[in-house]
Amino acid sequence: MRFTEKLAAAWAANNSLVCVGLDPDLQRLPAHLSRDAAGIATFNRAIIDATHDLVCAYKPQIAYFAACAAEDALRDGIDHIQRNYPHIPVILDAKRGDIGSTAEQYAVEAFERYGADAVTINPYMGHDSAEPFLRRADKGVVILCRTSNPGAADFQDLDVGGRPLYEIVAENVAQKWNGNRNCMLVLGATWPEQVARIRAQVGDVPFLVPGVGAQGGDVEKLVRAGRTANGTGLVINSSRAILYASSGEDFAEAARSEARKLRDLVNRYR
Amino acid sequence: MRFTEKLAAAWAANNSLVCVGLDPDLQRLPAHLSRDAAGIATFNRAIIDATHDLVCAYKPQIAYFAACAAEDALRDGIDHIQRNYPHIPVILDAKRGDIGSTAEQYAVEAFERYGADAVTINPYMGHDSAEPFLRRADKGVVILCRTSNPGAADFQDLDVGGRPLYEIVAENVAQKWNGNRNCMLVLGATWPEQVARIRAQVGDVPFLVPGVGAQGGDVEKLVRAGRTANGTGLVINSSRAILYASSGEDFAEAARSEARKLRDLVNRYR
Repeated sequence: MRFTEKLAAAWAANNSLVCVGLDPDLQRLPAHLSRDAAGIATFNRAIIDATHDLVCAYKPQIAYFAACAAEDALRDGIDHIQRNYPHIPVILDAKRGDIGSTAEQYAVEAFERYGADAVTINPYMGHDSAEPFLRRADKGVVILCRTSNPGAADFQDLDVGGRPLYEIVAENVAQKWNGNRNCMLVLGATWPEQVARIRAQVGDVPFLVPGVGAQGGDVEKLVRAGRTANGTGLVINSSRAILYASSGEDFAEAARSEARKLRDLVNRYR
Repeated sequence: MRFTEKLAAAWAANNSLVCVGLDPDLQRLPAHLSRDAAGIATFNRAIIDATHDLVCAYKPQIAYFAACAAEDALRDGIDHIQRNYPHIPVILDAKRGDIGSTAEQYAVEAFERYGADAVTINPYMGHDSAEPFLRRADKGVVILCRTSNPGAADFQDLDVGGRPLYEIVAENVAQKWNGNRNCMLVLGATWPEQVARIRAQVGDVPFLVPGVGAQGGDVEKLVRAGRTANGTGLVINSSRAILYASSGEDFAEAARSEARKLRDLVNRYR
């Protein structure tokens, strides 16, 4: 099954646009878990088991695993999802980007080594740096467009012939890179007006949206700006607010509660 | 010692601007080596031992290690350099870029886990994505500017108020990101005119230059365009032409010969 079909099926099966980001910070793991790769694996499995019926995707952030040599825990978490909840796609957040021969190695890392369904990439190096990912028609390619962080404005908002750079990126993706219909765009939740402009520009290309706050107003604006005609088109990620809702032994229940709250809030505006 | 001082000392000690890129492709290892992490480690050590007096830096490309779960071989190669040739800096080529909290994890990966002296990063996400690297005053931060691949033109060359985007990136780095004097820029060897423009713009910020061809003309134009007043300022990388100069048991000698040829060619024009 193609990634976009898998994502559409997960949206429908769980009636959810919420993605749980797996960012296992050793310093923030619940106190009763060991602060090592084994603790991370236990943590991830518990979070996944507690949220699998509330989400449309999981997004492990590879940096948290790489920092503490926990590659096995990353593989373990993805395996756990695919063995027990095979209908939920896994987006590996890696933001890779390099010349073609190197990008091919990164594609092997994401899709063969870790078995991810999709991977995030950085567009700065252009089409040939994306091509080794794009040509995997069954895999998703999630391209940075307008990110949620303060520094995003430094380059992404620069005026290129009357339009911001991120609109040129979106245009390239929609018109040239999406021949296999396997592209998504990263758009920060902090900028609903920008999300709306890009939605008008790219049709039904799905958006991965990080940076959702706790405030309902933000979610309302975001969903109304970014949803497609059938009320989907968004993968709304929350990591820390869900993962670290409690630092006690009830962390998984607390995560479930937060994930459900976000799902229901999002669904109110679809 | 700060990275830039270590680099300057290595330029002088080996009278060389050449960097050997460690891109250990399993498919291209010499036939007598095993096609696994152990074979990679053996290969890297032999290449390093054969070239250590001809180079100013080594640049392991992490994608090649990540694709085949050879993290231990990456660490082994860097350890081998630092134990035996501690005056030669190691630039980890990873092209990382993410929001601040995640970038901090990537900085831990590069500098603590692997002990690199410098790391390559992607500027697309802006200043706060670079900050966790930049604030390590003793470490080098090598920022993509104008890369050597065909797709580089897609976004890097876009006209921003009369200047290409990559010049805006270079300006930001030189004027805002380089407070600790620990920045470098990536500039492709394929574009000597662009290298010259950026050199005029950023003073003595060192350039990491991939994409050197076999033709002397390219090297002459590149060195004349990019050198600083004292005949340094460049880290000219060659990977495959050196690593795979021979696929036989003489691969290390052949690599030495290619590295020496490139060093001498570069030195002719400094």
